[in-house]
Amino acid sequence: MNETISLLMNHRSIRKYKSEQVTEEQLNTIIKAGQMASSSSSVQAYSVIAVSDPEQKRALSILAGNQAYIEQCSVFLVWCADLYRLQKVSESQLGDQPTCVDSTENLIVATADAALAAQNAAVAAESMGLGIVYIGGVRNQIAEFSEQLNLPELVYPVFGMCVGYPDQDPGIRPRLPLESVLHHGAYDAQRTVEEVKNYDNTYTEYMRARSGDKPVASWSQFMAKRLAEPVRLHMKDFLQGKGFMKR
Amino acid sequence: MNETISLLMNHRSIRKYKSEQVTEEQLNTIIKAGQMASSSSSVQAYSVIAVSDPEQKRALSILAGNQAYIEQCSVFLVWCADLYRLQKVSESQLGDQPTCVDSTENLIVATADAALAAQNAAVAAESMGLGIVYIGGVRNQIAEFSEQLNLPELVYPVFGMCVGYPDQDPGIRPRLPLESVLHHGAYDAQRTVEEVKNYDNTYTEYMRARSGDKPVASWSQFMAKRLAEPVRLHMKDFLQGKGFMKR
Repeated sequence: MNETISLLMNHRSIRKYKSEQVTEEQLNTIIKAGQMASSSSSVQAYSVIAVSDPEQKRALSILAGNQAYIEQCSVFLVWCADLYRLQKVSESQLGDQPTCVDSTENLIVATADAALAAQNAAVAAESMGLGIVYIGGVRNQIAEFSEQLNLPELVYPVFGMCVGYPDQDPGIRPRLPLESVLHHGAYDAQRTVEEVKNYDNTYTEYMRARSGDKPVASWSQFMAKRLAEPVRLHMKDFLQGKGFMKR
Repeated sequence: MNETISLLMNHRSIRKYKSEQVTEEQLNTIIKAGQMASSSSSVQAYSVIAVSDPEQKRALSILAGNQAYIEQCSVFLVWCADLYRLQKVSESQLGDQPTCVDSTENLIVATADAALAAQNAAVAAESMGLGIVYIGGVRNQIAEFSEQLNLPELVYPVFGMCVGYPDQDPGIRPRLPLESVLHHGAYDAQRTVEEVKNYDNTYTEYMRARSGDKPVASWSQFMAKRLAEPVRLHMKDFLQGKGFMKR
């Protein structure tokens, strides 16, 4: 196993950080590494907002579900799908000619572009000894959150990412069996579900150890609870209001 | 610059492959490294279909826009957003109780999960001396493509990825200036667009050298052309037909 794969296999989300700060040089290196990820036809349809001001981190933390590590981390990155830049650049070329910026296809392109860049950045940060955790909570109150960051039309925050020096050493959370995720030649609907049975035991053991032997739900129970809850049902209206996926 | 960051900074998409094959052990390592990427609340809402049969690669290549490297690469990976597994697991817990699997929020979660895992896998593959290229063309004829791979409801192919030993050594494509992509504290709508002017020159020089001094469009012209074209306008209907983003 080479050094890079060893790094990838050791990923843990970090939710407690030291007070030591990430330097501007480190931040620039992390984002440049993010930029080197592939992008659909070079559109580079994403932006990232770096927030290091303590007051601003606190305000964003409250909007994202009161997660203390957003306030505590050195720099909070907000990864955005960004079709605004493309639209403005196109307008300068095309004038009033209509574009397809509002297609569902372009929402997918921009969301994927943001995620690919973010994951490269995460790997770069971890390779420097930093820790990260993704924050889906930026979508909890997405309108207010977007307003705080002056996000214009055609830009939305896909997720946040805390970055800083780890002040904890959590275990590695077990993943689904390879056989559930990897299919050969065609999707195997039966196996992908059956393999979850084995995973439920592994996952429960891990979570029980982590919670100090308290009773915990299995992965299946946890997933069912999550899928039944009406979470962030505002997303469709919000995205369409921002000019995304109108068709 | 450490070894991992150096690897990330040297990424080039590879579109010509040697006949040497990727082994099963290599493939498993690549996918396991992909699985170690973060996932929203551990939902792991993705699957990957590995295709190495020459006939099947040829058939998929035709559907994805006749890109020869899909046929030529050792293994073609199709990265799918997958809410099917979660829905089935939830049904086993909840019975007939309705879920929110059809929310736009869950489409975003599954798309991001697939992209994060894919990018980790790409980095792992490149760390082994392999090359990759993402294939958005899987969405060209997405219904037929999905049928070829038996993708059930609540699963869609986000992109493909060719993997194999590189038989070319292309230059590194310049990215947007850091100042266009990275914002501090708030989105800077003026700067993100202005910085493109500098980039247009850099990009044109790179593309001209690559095309053997033929005249080439600037990035802005290329983007305007792309955004004006009615590309993959079937995506909304297709995704809704598969049970995604109904609300």
